[in-house]
Amino acid sequence: MDSPDAPYRMTATAPHIFFSSNLDSPQAWREALARHLGDFSFTVGPHCADPAAIDVALVYKPPKEGLLAFRNLRAVVSLSAGINQFSPAMLPAGVPLSRSIDSTLTQHMIAYAKAAVYRYHRRFHVFERNSRESAWRFELPKSNAETTVGVLGLGELGSAVASALAVDGFGVQGWSRRARDLPGIRTHAGDAGLHAMAAGVDIVINVLPLTDATEGILSGRLFASFRQGAFLINMGRGGHLVEQDLLSALDEGRIAAATLDVVQVEPLPEGHPFWAHPGILITPHIAGITSPESAAPQIAENIRRAMRGQGLLNQVDWARGY
Amino acid sequence: MDSPDAPYRMTATAPHIFFSSNLDSPQAWREALARHLGDFSFTVGPHCADPAAIDVALVYKPPKEGLLAFRNLRAVVSLSAGINQFSPAMLPAGVPLSRSIDSTLTQHMIAYAKAAVYRYHRRFHVFERNSRESAWRFELPKSNAETTVGVLGLGELGSAVASALAVDGFGVQGWSRRARDLPGIRTHAGDAGLHAMAAGVDIVINVLPLTDATEGILSGRLFASFRQGAFLINMGRGGHLVEQDLLSALDEGRIAAATLDVVQVEPLPEGHPFWAHPGILITPHIAGITSPESAAPQIAENIRRAMRGQGLLNQVDWARGY
Repeated sequence: MDSPDAPYRMTATAPHIFFSSNLDSPQAWREALARHLGDFSFTVGPHCADPAAIDVALVYKPPKEGLLAFRNLRAVVSLSAGINQFSPAMLPAGVPLSRSIDSTLTQHMIAYAKAAVYRYHRRFHVFERNSRESAWRFELPKSNAETTVGVLGLGELGSAVASALAVDGFGVQGWSRRARDLPGIRTHAGDAGLHAMAAGVDIVINVLPLTDATEGILSGRLFASFRQGAFLINMGRGGHLVEQDLLSALDEGRIAAATLDVVQVEPLPEGHPFWAHPGILITPHIAGITSPESAAPQIAENIRRAMRGQGLLNQVDWARGY
Repeated sequence: MDSPDAPYRMTATAPHIFFSSNLDSPQAWREALARHLGDFSFTVGPHCADPAAIDVALVYKPPKEGLLAFRNLRAVVSLSAGINQFSPAMLPAGVPLSRSIDSTLTQHMIAYAKAAVYRYHRRFHVFERNSRESAWRFELPKSNAETTVGVLGLGELGSAVASALAVDGFGVQGWSRRARDLPGIRTHAGDAGLHAMAAGVDIVINVLPLTDATEGILSGRLFASFRQGAFLINMGRGGHLVEQDLLSALDEGRIAAATLDVVQVEPLPEGHPFWAHPGILITPHIAGITSPESAAPQIAENIRRAMRGQGLLNQVDWARGY
């Protein structure tokens, strides 16, 4: 029996964490978790010599062979908000998966959306080209209220993006699969609502999770409902976009320009037609990054819950897909 | 004597307005003023057959020969917020000049500042170049709080820009010639304060009026105080910037990139080194435009005041320079 003075970190249930990411710093995560968790072991991937010893896997992308060898796993924590890189078949049966959504990630997504929206709204994408062509061409600026933005996806991130743009005075509409109410935002739902919103806005921003129901949603069928000369910003996943359909819509002038933070294959391969296209701006999947400092409290709490056999915060519902 | 039923617009004192601008629509201004003013005459420039008949000149740029022939003028109303295109010697003695600052102009300036700030903050200026070079190069995004912005000029426009950026979470500082207090903004004043602020921020935005005291303020001497790799945004006037000094600062890497809405000679001449420079984005003096709809009430009030011989709203103090 523990003496009453024994610190919590000395208990025998110190979790053994497996960490694996090609983008995130293991050192930063280890330090951030240490500030919010008692004693723990920390094994850094991608390889794991003793997977059966691992309690919790903290990963950005799971290994190709999945996590089935981690047969005593109590939870998987995704380092990102999107979890389409996971599937139930990769995890030992019944092991819960949680998404990481923290306030820093949300602020990053809002800032990225503003960077992309203001660039089109104030025609900086045209002035960039004009600057290279030594062309001084006056364009009358529009007020924010004269530009309407439609946000696809009204979960935690999409709602935050929509609200922030509404606060800046843009005309904002939002769409989700199931009807949602958001103050100051005209919301739509279902397939008919999707096309109605697309037809009524100047800029479409995708912040949907990638699921079977949303894969390929940014297609020629949807673009046919866009206003002529609309703008597309994809902050969701590459799998949302039918890439050839975007090229066609750009060629027809249906879409004037697109900002893509995500693509089907990342990094975008050399020679891909998106690179050469003057109407496409590629950003290297940097819209939102989960920060160890701000996400560690929530992740530490999920590790504690996993050790106690409890449900997780932001636990993925596989039937829903996020 | 007027009958009590005679409408105001039938009085003999209906103002005769001379309108001249190479940018603004006379029709839009005439209609907007008609909604806020009684009867008036409206002569559209640049030429005026009978200048002695004019009561109020509503102009963007005064004619080269000035307005001395308008010898019965009661007021000059500048269509812009900046009035450096005017001098007392151009106006009949004692005729007051007013600047036009309306909420739409202020909102335009805020939106332009955000477009330029978010572009640098979220590295879109780098991703634009990388997109053209087929280069997928990851850059860790920074939170807004990690980017500091210094606003030169804390008048009505500068204060609004500084406050809007602070609301978005940027670290904002401000500088004015005379000390000013602004909630949430660290303010500086005087020459020492100017260099102190320049040394402490990542992005410098100029929103100063152009006066003898501020001409050439964006010079090599000031850039020497900038952080290495800082960004410059000039929303003031071309006369604020010593153009050769900017080129030197860019070559040295002291300034990483600059967004210029205003230049010494507008339109920027063909062959000017700013056009070819990869670090310079030129926008064609579109940061803020005075809108007839939102400015007409204030300008109509100034026309009424001029007809009554009263002082004007936003009347220029020539000693101060704005």
